[in-house]
Amino acid sequence: MTAPAPPMLVGIGVGPGDPELLTLKAVRILRQASVVLVPETEESDGKAGRAETIVLAAVPEARIQRVPFSMRDRSGVTARRKQAWLTSAEAALDAFRTGASSVVFATIGDPSVYSTFSYLAGHVAEELPEIEIELVPGITAMQALAAASRTPLVEGKETLALVPATAGDDHLREVLAVADTVVTYKGGRRLPEIAQIAVERGGVVGIQLGMEGERIVSLADAEPGPYFSTVLIPARRDSIGGQL
Amino acid sequence: MTAPAPPMLVGIGVGPGDPELLTLKAVRILRQASVVLVPETEESDGKAGRAETIVLAAVPEARIQRVPFSMRDRSGVTARRKQAWLTSAEAALDAFRTGASSVVFATIGDPSVYSTFSYLAGHVAEELPEIEIELVPGITAMQALAAASRTPLVEGKETLALVPATAGDDHLREVLAVADTVVTYKGGRRLPEIAQIAVERGGVVGIQLGMEGERIVSLADAEPGPYFSTVLIPARRDSIGGQL
Repeated sequence: MTAPAPPMLVGIGVGPGDPELLTLKAVRILRQASVVLVPETEESDGKAGRAETIVLAAVPEARIQRVPFSMRDRSGVTARRKQAWLTSAEAALDAFRTGASSVVFATIGDPSVYSTFSYLAGHVAEELPEIEIELVPGITAMQALAAASRTPLVEGKETLALVPATAGDDHLREVLAVADTVVTYKGGRRLPEIAQIAVERGGVVGIQLGMEGERIVSLADAEPGPYFSTVLIPARRDSIGGQL
Repeated sequence: MTAPAPPMLVGIGVGPGDPELLTLKAVRILRQASVVLVPETEESDGKAGRAETIVLAAVPEARIQRVPFSMRDRSGVTARRKQAWLTSAEAALDAFRTGASSVVFATIGDPSVYSTFSYLAGHVAEELPEIEIELVPGITAMQALAAASRTPLVEGKETLALVPATAGDDHLREVLAVADTVVTYKGGRRLPEIAQIAVERGGVVGIQLGMEGERIVSLADAEPGPYFSTVLIPARRDSIGGQL
């Protein structure tokens, strides 16, 4: 006889939007999960959020549980973000205490890239140290935009940087000076300003990647768009194949 | 009646090693492909290379064709690398000219990240402009290492950089000064030197990720390893969850 496997908490990246970009591993674990936690935004107004939509398209039988993930709150930025992952952690702890053998937290993109999964996992580990924790990587919006626009992220000896537009314009300029290709997240509302900073470089913008309403536009032509738009400012290259 | 779909050339990322990290889309297209081109290294000595091993584990019925991908050659670096992707392009052109409806080039990791697929595709497009070209993103070694070591790549307002160790030590120092988290590829033979440069930061090294012989070691303890080892030098963080 073997000992029963310990309960598992799994952070799964579900990719940027297209359910076909889930990995085989993600699908297997989503299918077996006792419960799949998905963030619910205030804006979603009772409708399925993006992670839930992706999970259910790939695994219709998934046992979904929505957890509040408020983007705006009276109590200020720090408190509300902490609240969001703490609420998810409490939902996971409740599930384990009532016998769940595996709890999945589904995160857009990759759970190691701008996700709160590590906070959630840290809190669960403090309360229930016997839980095993696992991460399953997922395709990021950066990769989906590169593929959809056929713009290589890096070739040869090039350097790639991923920077949140929220880190400020001066930081973006610093990064542009050091990295060949620069991708920005969370800059959708400030696309014209980013275009201005990257004026000699140009680039492409991905909006609603893999979702209804997907658009890929030139950075130079971009109007302010949704907050989660992705900007790819590619390395200067002579031509395809020209770098060899 | 609808017109027949045009022939397709598809660059597919097959992830770093674990066949379960293939996406659903990759599996579907690999299954339908007329031919799946995989690189064959000199070192592989008639045995299956890494991409072939991954593809066949996930899709045993895939119609594999090996193309030479020599890492060392008498004729020098530039000539041999060009030769490798040109040989693949010629194999793809041959397949299309004999009636293939879809040709897949399987690439380790993601076809937009240090892959020669864009050169190959550019050459095919020049010769046969009617071919449609598509890319399917794949999980990178960087993401697999972050997941396996439970080290977030980026949180909050942090910046991530991916830099090839072949770009030199001075460049690595520059990138470390600007980015919070730095990942290096192709530095396996120089792990002690990279550890020296990142001495105040520390990090983790992923060797043979998702393959037989997978190891994750501390950067400080690392001996020189295989060329394709991945180094993750994480942002300075107080604690898990401590950044909120």
